Amino acid sequence: MNPQPQPDQEPLSKERLRLWLRILKLSSSVQAELRRRLRDNHDTTLPRFDVMAALSRYPDGLKMSELSDYLKVSNGNITGIIDRLAEEGLALRVAVPGDRRAMIARLTPKGTKAFADLAQHHEEWIDDRLGNLTREDAKTLTRLLNKALDDRNT
Amino acid sequence: MNPQPQPDQEPLSKERLRLWLRILKLSSSVQAELRRRLRDNHDTTLPRFDVMAALSRYPDGLKMSELSDYLKVSNGNITGIIDRLAEEGLALRVAVPGDRRAMIARLTPKGTKAFADLAQHHEEWIDDRLGNLTREDAKTLTRLLNKALDDRNT
Repeated sequence: MNPQPQPDQEPLSKERLRLWLRILKLSSSVQAELRRRLRDNHDTTLPRFDVMAALSRYPDGLKMSELSDYLKVSNGNITGIIDRLAEEGLALRVAVPGDRRAMIARLTPKGTKAFADLAQHHEEWIDDRLGNLTREDAKTLTRLLNKALDDRNT
Repeated sequence: MNPQPQPDQEPLSKERLRLWLRILKLSSSVQAELRRRLRDNHDTTLPRFDVMAALSRYPDGLKMSELSDYLKVSNGNITGIIDRLAEEGLALRVAVPGDRRAMIARLTPKGTKAFADLAQHHEEWIDDRLGNLTREDAKTLTRLLNKALDDRNT
């Protein structure tokens, strides 16, 4: 389908591969930095941050199975994280009416406040880490990454 | 340092945060797809692919400790992967002259050929996955991601 590359051009597949390696490098380095900052400054972990972020988007709570689908990690890990959040008064589990086996997890007001604080720090770290990018740069990147994320058949 | 946002503009930190979430979404979804394809089509794993990729860049081989630094994973995991590659005739370990405790790992010709085949498939998957992006899109993204990766103080 692609036209023959001109003599001075690399194949487009090489250009896209180079791009993928940059995406991977940036996402790996930012994630490593986030993990380190969450651990050193907030005594917490990225999976726990992700669970709190998911719950903060659903004030009425999420079933454990929904949380597990949403975060694409195993139910067992989520249960452990919710157990610890509950012990610290940051989350609670409530029974689902009409389904005795299902439990809904949600943040307590204390948990909501703790997450808002973490999210504020998170936004500041990302702002600092991506500080080389102007508003135009960020908009262009977001637009092109959304294009890459679109289903290829639509 | 940043000028006050105009009334119709979001803070730049929100724009950068949105961008980060897109980078994370794209890198996570492409990596999940790569893992699945390596497992289903090639009966292999992403860490093993990464070890072979690193060795393929150093035909004279790498010390186990260099490989571990390079890939940022623990020496123990690397040793297990090299053990299995050696059993299958894809890699070998040779002693370092003058350092009886250090071992260098390198690909055998069979391993070099096996990796070239995997790398070709990898490039094709990425080309397909990022198929929405034109050459101009890919170049713009790579340029702006390199800008983001640059040290913020230079």
